[in-house]
Amino acid sequence: MAHDAALVARLLDEARSLVLGEIRRAIADRRRTGYAPLYDQLEVYPFREGKGLRPAILLSACRSVGGWTEQAIVSATAVELFHNAFLVHDDIEDGSELRRGLVTLPEQFGVPSAVNVGDATNVLAIAMLLDNLEVLGVRKALLTIREIERMARESVEGQAIELEWIRLRHYDLSDDDYARMAHKKTCWYTVIAPLRLGVIAGSVPGVGAPTDTELEPLIGVGFLAGIAFQIQDDLLNLVGDPGVYGKEAAGDLWEGKRTVMLNHFIRGASAPVRDRALAVLNTERRDKDAAEVSWLHAAMHEAGSIEHGRRLANEYCERALEAYAQMNVFTVDGTDRRFLQEMLTYVIDRIK
Amino acid sequence: MAHDAALVARLLDEARSLVLGEIRRAIADRRRTGYAPLYDQLEVYPFREGKGLRPAILLSACRSVGGWTEQAIVSATAVELFHNAFLVHDDIEDGSELRRGLVTLPEQFGVPSAVNVGDATNVLAIAMLLDNLEVLGVRKALLTIREIERMARESVEGQAIELEWIRLRHYDLSDDDYARMAHKKTCWYTVIAPLRLGVIAGSVPGVGAPTDTELEPLIGVGFLAGIAFQIQDDLLNLVGDPGVYGKEAAGDLWEGKRTVMLNHFIRGASAPVRDRALAVLNTERRDKDAAEVSWLHAAMHEAGSIEHGRRLANEYCERALEAYAQMNVFTVDGTDRRFLQEMLTYVIDRIK
Repeated sequence: MAHDAALVARLLDEARSLVLGEIRRAIADRRRTGYAPLYDQLEVYPFREGKGLRPAILLSACRSVGGWTEQAIVSATAVELFHNAFLVHDDIEDGSELRRGLVTLPEQFGVPSAVNVGDATNVLAIAMLLDNLEVLGVRKALLTIREIERMARESVEGQAIELEWIRLRHYDLSDDDYARMAHKKTCWYTVIAPLRLGVIAGSVPGVGAPTDTELEPLIGVGFLAGIAFQIQDDLLNLVGDPGVYGKEAAGDLWEGKRTVMLNHFIRGASAPVRDRALAVLNTERRDKDAAEVSWLHAAMHEAGSIEHGRRLANEYCERALEAYAQMNVFTVDGTDRRFLQEMLTYVIDRIK
Repeated sequence: MAHDAALVARLLDEARSLVLGEIRRAIADRRRTGYAPLYDQLEVYPFREGKGLRPAILLSACRSVGGWTEQAIVSATAVELFHNAFLVHDDIEDGSELRRGLVTLPEQFGVPSAVNVGDATNVLAIAMLLDNLEVLGVRKALLTIREIERMARESVEGQAIELEWIRLRHYDLSDDDYARMAHKKTCWYTVIAPLRLGVIAGSVPGVGAPTDTELEPLIGVGFLAGIAFQIQDDLLNLVGDPGVYGKEAAGDLWEGKRTVMLNHFIRGASAPVRDRALAVLNTERRDKDAAEVSWLHAAMHEAGSIEHGRRLANEYCERALEAYAQMNVFTVDGTDRRFLQEMLTYVIDRIK
């Protein structure tokens, strides 16, 4: 499948620079009134070039229900900050080495500071949500906080599922097991919440603000697109160009992450191959043998596991497009509505 | 100094069991609707016997301005959850081994899960704050969230100061440097915010809800009592009974924590003694020599550093009592007001 790359790139760019401006302002303010060195560490991830996907979805969703950019900027900035907080803690949890092409925060400043920087990023995002009172009024600002609570709850539960798989050495996971985990870990904070928060921000104010029933269909589309996004993320880790993608090549195998591709490989492996793979995966990262990781990587290719991941991502993408076509939430025709549709394909076309 | 131990113990007990009941209910609810194993890990710290100091201060402050217990339960529970989230991440940041007499969460489940459990505990606390809307109404519920944001911001900034001292090997710190750090790290979330949140919850509702000016004097008292509390905490680490106190003996020296006592010792040490001490402190915990830690511990006693800490804690305690005597925020005479006053001495009398 192909998407309108120019359109998507333009809206991602716009959203990113808008939100980075807000983050820059907020951090400058904190640096003046608080302990400045903390904010030097806090700004590291946000100002490494991210995709800007979450704020872009949020802003376009807002404008596609008739809202203005101004109504959504604070929410978009908060979501981007929550995302960055998530990345900092995720890099500790996974023991990752690279993020957006440079060493991870725990590598740069140590795990103790990184834990605290992640917490500080969450606090800054919560401060933003309080600023929303002036922008959106009480009802929508509270709806927004509720939505963020749900998003954060789903994310920590998804993380817990994935961490328990690794900690307790669970294998034999189906594609549906994976989808259930990623629904919580990725879909909520990457697609579902940005869509819903955009609609909350942009919809008619007062008693016309959206209800649970109106926001409901966004969960389905966001789920399907989010799974496609996460499988593509895991594919890029295995086959992408690390220089473009920004994480270490095959880092997921070093971390023992249960991706759709790995699960497919383990399910289909003969007993001796399975044993050899599990020996690699169960070894602590620092004790792993690079040659064995390369073997596993090659064996997954040969077993058609990469192909299986591509096929599954495509399926989810097509289902997302179908579900999107049946929605009637986004009433304003134009660039933003086109972006939201193109984004559903972009998630599996992207190379970073 | 001495405090009314029976009164303090009774109000701590009452607050603790009230709040634990709420936490139990909230966790049972999450376990039903979410990923249960996460909540098995989340409940570990709250159900180890804590002091219950923060909820007790909050509840007594509420009742001492004429409020009811019912108005403050949700805030008290949220504060206790934020405290537990803080402890989980603090134990990762400090590399601690024991908490409340048992192994720390990162030791029990690994650092990755502990990072996530801390995050999940914060999310649960935020959910509580939204429940406050039904209990306190919009204005007070929003004031409460603002207060929590401030509390959390001060805490992460205080943590950052302490972590940077260790990471960048800063020594030569004065008692005032320490007080500035602990003001942020400890005082806000241990005393200042509980006092202020109690007043917010219990004061006359509607437009009579407290303003910044009315809440201001609580910062001074909370600061003084909080510093006394933190110095006593560090003293217990050096001289307390580990069986009662619940953390490993002299763990702070293993962690290289810059306590008032350590700073005093370093400031007064001759060049060779200072070099020997810094060599111990700058060595990674796992590479430290137990005999050298014991030497440092003994040398601090001999140098009068423990005595210096005791004297300073006493001074802060006396100043807290003076500041408290000049406040007129707590208008309802009775057990709760007595508790708030006795608590100011309890913080340096306590043995756990």
